[in-house]
Amino acid sequence: MPNKRPEPILAVGTIGIDTVVTPFGRADEVLGGSGTFFAIAASILAPVNLVSVVGEDFDLWPELSRSNISLEGVAVLSGKTFRWGGSYREDINRRDTLFTELGVLEKFDPQLPLSWQSSRTVFLANVDPPTQLKILDSLAKPEFVVTDTMNFWIHSDLERLKKVIARSDVLILNDDEARELTGKLNVLSALDEILAMGPRIVVLKKGEHGALMTDGGEFFALPGYPLKKVVDPTGAGDTFAGGFVGYIQRSGSTSEEILRKAIVYGSALASFCCEDFSIRRLKKLSLEELESRVEEFRRLVQFG
Amino acid sequence: MPNKRPEPILAVGTIGIDTVVTPFGRADEVLGGSGTFFAIAASILAPVNLVSVVGEDFDLWPELSRSNISLEGVAVLSGKTFRWGGSYREDINRRDTLFTELGVLEKFDPQLPLSWQSSRTVFLANVDPPTQLKILDSLAKPEFVVTDTMNFWIHSDLERLKKVIARSDVLILNDDEARELTGKLNVLSALDEILAMGPRIVVLKKGEHGALMTDGGEFFALPGYPLKKVVDPTGAGDTFAGGFVGYIQRSGSTSEEILRKAIVYGSALASFCCEDFSIRRLKKLSLEELESRVEEFRRLVQFG
Repeated sequence: MPNKRPEPILAVGTIGIDTVVTPFGRADEVLGGSGTFFAIAASILAPVNLVSVVGEDFDLWPELSRSNISLEGVAVLSGKTFRWGGSYREDINRRDTLFTELGVLEKFDPQLPLSWQSSRTVFLANVDPPTQLKILDSLAKPEFVVTDTMNFWIHSDLERLKKVIARSDVLILNDDEARELTGKLNVLSALDEILAMGPRIVVLKKGEHGALMTDGGEFFALPGYPLKKVVDPTGAGDTFAGGFVGYIQRSGSTSEEILRKAIVYGSALASFCCEDFSIRRLKKLSLEELESRVEEFRRLVQFG
Repeated sequence: MPNKRPEPILAVGTIGIDTVVTPFGRADEVLGGSGTFFAIAASILAPVNLVSVVGEDFDLWPELSRSNISLEGVAVLSGKTFRWGGSYREDINRRDTLFTELGVLEKFDPQLPLSWQSSRTVFLANVDPPTQLKILDSLAKPEFVVTDTMNFWIHSDLERLKKVIARSDVLILNDDEARELTGKLNVLSALDEILAMGPRIVVLKKGEHGALMTDGGEFFALPGYPLKKVVDPTGAGDTFAGGFVGYIQRSGSTSEEILRKAIVYGSALASFCCEDFSIRRLKKLSLEELESRVEEFRRLVQFG
């Protein structure tokens, strides 16, 4: 790891207020959103400049603030903050959306602070493709663009989503999204097709089954961390992305070996995310605890 | 690996005639059955003494015969050989059973050749629990018993199945079976409960998502091999078991490190199994090819 402080990652994503019900309890009006989970996770490894929007009712600033996160790019608009409610079944892999209130997200039109326009590492979380494209257009020279997406945009805005993918270095998505994006049932065939859309790397998130990364030649696969109690998996995917991009930024390299280790950091952070509601576990997580879980992953897959 | 020739593994399982339809084609009246796949796979690594039954119509002896497999324990009874037909959907993880004709399997009452009663390593494939128990009772001093099971017995003969599990050192099963056996939705909780039933080790087969092994303390996890074309997954689970037990027998040890590597050998063999119908790929597989795939697994999960 380099000694000098890494440059900030530019991250665009939502800030939301979540209500989550799981078999282990519930959490009402807690901090959520793709930008939130990404930023909190990545900030353990590198500084983050967060671009997002909240309503005038937003009162979770103390939860969100960290020395390594700049909130200068978070617009406060009149109206209500994005709210989402979800309920997980006993099989924690299945969830039902209880409600979605877009609020100010509907008029999100991000303006980058001038000094952020020279950002070189960019994470585009799950926001609408036009917003993702606008961010890319406002950057002078993005060098490493990591994009996350969601089923919703595959169905509602495929054309512009494909433009975002073409301009990304890394696309992160899950099994279902890979199949829906390509129409291929075999996930590995889907990955080949996604690589043909432009990105150099595709990372497949498989939840409890881990992650798979490929550049079309090499594969790297990591099993899921054996977590006995999944309290709340909300945000685990964005947390994974935060660990992935955060480790890369901290390392100052996008070599195959760094990307592999970045997957382990992402997976380790995602496992912590699931241990409690909202960002509760992530907020008190130390770098030492994170590195210790990375070593647990090493032992998990080690064979002689 | 020891230089001396390992003792034979005693394996009990079915020999069947399969008809398999997949999106890639079909195979009619080909060799199948849990004992078959196990024996062919394990015999690459150690000798196998196979206990099974076929009908007088069985004419696939040349397919089944290998220098490392003794068929002295295969009874030939009047009647028809067990037949199974299955059809895989485009999503290769889903299959429909087209027909099951038990034939002589219904009167299977295995008699162990005298010299086999001193077998120390035993694999009990998916046959009915009373047959599994009878085999165990006829052994002088079994030292390492590995058992596979199937949903069917969990529902139809749970009491005796639990007796078999209690007398096993290793139980191999898949996610669904672990949940059904214990009533626990969280697979890791299910594994704890299974360990409490008696075995020292539980191995969870997760198909394309790999395998997970635990002794209640340590976990070992291996992702699935990224196979671009799954032609026919029939028998992959028994093939996995064949590689697992075969490697342990060849090594002459059941240490944690040997068990971990045995999982890799099992997974590598299972991946070859899926590359063609029936035992076609396994039959022509060399030890060198197998070891080369084990090294591919090493690279697949390696991080700095």
